[in-house]
Amino acid sequence: MQLLQETMEKIQAVDQEMMGKARERVDALSKPPQSLGKLEALAIQLSGITGELFPNIDQKAMIVMAGDHGVYDEGVTTNPQNVTVFQTLSFPRGLTGVCAIANITNAKVVPVDIGVKEDLPTDAGVMIKKVKYGTDNMAKGPAMTREEAVQAIEVGIEVATEEIKKGVNLLGTGEMGIGNTTPSAAILSVIHDCDPLEVTGFGAGVGAGGIEYKAEVIRKAIALNKPNPQDPLDILAKVGGLEIAGMAGVILAAAANRVPVVIDGYISTVAALIAYKLEAKVKEYVIPSHASEEPGAKIAAQLLDIEPMLHMNMRLGEGSGAALAFPILDAACSMMKNMATLEEAMLLLK
Amino acid sequence: MQLLQETMEKIQAVDQEMMGKARERVDALSKPPQSLGKLEALAIQLSGITGELFPNIDQKAMIVMAGDHGVYDEGVTTNPQNVTVFQTLSFPRGLTGVCAIANITNAKVVPVDIGVKEDLPTDAGVMIKKVKYGTDNMAKGPAMTREEAVQAIEVGIEVATEEIKKGVNLLGTGEMGIGNTTPSAAILSVIHDCDPLEVTGFGAGVGAGGIEYKAEVIRKAIALNKPNPQDPLDILAKVGGLEIAGMAGVILAAAANRVPVVIDGYISTVAALIAYKLEAKVKEYVIPSHASEEPGAKIAAQLLDIEPMLHMNMRLGEGSGAALAFPILDAACSMMKNMATLEEAMLLLK
Repeated sequence: MQLLQETMEKIQAVDQEMMGKARERVDALSKPPQSLGKLEALAIQLSGITGELFPNIDQKAMIVMAGDHGVYDEGVTTNPQNVTVFQTLSFPRGLTGVCAIANITNAKVVPVDIGVKEDLPTDAGVMIKKVKYGTDNMAKGPAMTREEAVQAIEVGIEVATEEIKKGVNLLGTGEMGIGNTTPSAAILSVIHDCDPLEVTGFGAGVGAGGIEYKAEVIRKAIALNKPNPQDPLDILAKVGGLEIAGMAGVILAAAANRVPVVIDGYISTVAALIAYKLEAKVKEYVIPSHASEEPGAKIAAQLLDIEPMLHMNMRLGEGSGAALAFPILDAACSMMKNMATLEEAMLLLK
Repeated sequence: MQLLQETMEKIQAVDQEMMGKARERVDALSKPPQSLGKLEALAIQLSGITGELFPNIDQKAMIVMAGDHGVYDEGVTTNPQNVTVFQTLSFPRGLTGVCAIANITNAKVVPVDIGVKEDLPTDAGVMIKKVKYGTDNMAKGPAMTREEAVQAIEVGIEVATEEIKKGVNLLGTGEMGIGNTTPSAAILSVIHDCDPLEVTGFGAGVGAGGIEYKAEVIRKAIALNKPNPQDPLDILAKVGGLEIAGMAGVILAAAANRVPVVIDGYISTVAALIAYKLEAKVKEYVIPSHASEEPGAKIAAQLLDIEPMLHMNMRLGEGSGAALAFPILDAACSMMKNMATLEEAMLLLK
């Protein structure tokens, strides 16, 4: 709990003065006012986060948290549970979707076993930070203890902080965990105070009972565990997931270290919501990416007051959408650095 | 007219067989079916266009057509007309928005004077292919003759073909021309058979009379010139623009040479509509990019049955949105090439 506490206390508001300077430069660039839209907003946000007018985001890392889910046993998904292990071992070999996409900006992919059900080989290139062998089945009791939830967040903090110490200056959140749209929908329906059906989708392949049954499992889990809507750690522990906690930790650590963090789709956005409920200031460090196909994603984004930029009909997870947004941030930085102000252009063209 | 005719005749349907093979590979990749959404569709389209399962798009060029507009005299915009010259000379120096964005994928920017009102220095790095010194004022007569419109399309064909011969394997369309949302809205309202107000927006800065006045100017120009809605060359000549014609030529040449072409926002999409009306098969070679803030952009995209991927609230033009979509295409190619099929991954992880 101490690391989490310290990390939350370390989070400061973004640098308003530098954002003012950034806005001045953006407005002076050789273009009609506001004509680069969100690219301008991103550049200003990056300046506020880093305190630099020309931020450097050349060392990118996508942290992929992998964990299993006890609620799998309820038949909420058609996918075999061991896909989690299989894919987790595929990340270090560069074989997965997020690896192929991260490639385009030379971003590294950092896979972390935070709670996969099986023991993974220690020499496979996956960081072993297992909190437990998957969550417990939330349809029968809490997914994990409060202590385990805190521990999982702290794994995220540790991994992200280590990467930042190595020089990483842009983070992304990704996940791998068969069944994890179920706890995501559970968390969201508690925070948003809505019926689970409203935020439950197809995931990577819904079980035979369909979306209605998946929502019913969530409804029961919430009724049984009674998470306190005012207590994000309680929600996370009772109906959450280890990789969701880990991603919340990554987001908190990014904010504490003034490093921008790009979140992926549904599950990442729910993790960001948990981080936001723990410490509201993290919101300013979070950068959205793509609009996931999952129905809950839109609601989660609205609660965070963020607007995804990419509309790709994607729903792979792994951080694939976040990695696809990395070049947009490169473009925002290039705009700041390489585009001339009207004054500069006039001097140069004389 | 001969070059245009030959180019149109050269355009073939995309390679359906290769698209089938591409779809097979995409479906075999290690991910839930369709979970990479539009990235999958793009990869398949690129295979259909190029006839290659693993297309190469490492030589990117953004062709920026620059031209002036006689209708400027009606006060449709607040921007000084000489901004066209100023910006056109800024492109070869890498100072503009599209240059900063094209940077991120090492795409080159090829500025072309197809109809700027003034003579430009011949050593400034701008290709001089001037058809005339800006269009005539469409509020007083046709913007240009049919012959000039054809000539401007053929400039686009020539420039694009030359780039392709030099090894360019991905094209983008961009433009620079103060006042050019006015002819774009005029063309679109003729093709879509709607009142100009429906497709008229703020542009880079609407004149003192507002959008209502801008639409009224267009309404008058259409009433005066009576373009034939069935004849794209007649529309282009009477109420179009030289840079719009040039971009239509770039799109036609891309299709004729089986090179993918990414279109930018409103003005580019209208140019694509003209190309499409000339030869419907071009549509399969066109790749959308961002959703422009201009109200007509949405309608133009619907008429072409394309869906922009980037929602950035941008309205700069120059090809800025198209350049921002280049990395998405890189990601689609990387997915095809670097992501493992389930079978491959299983063998590798044994």
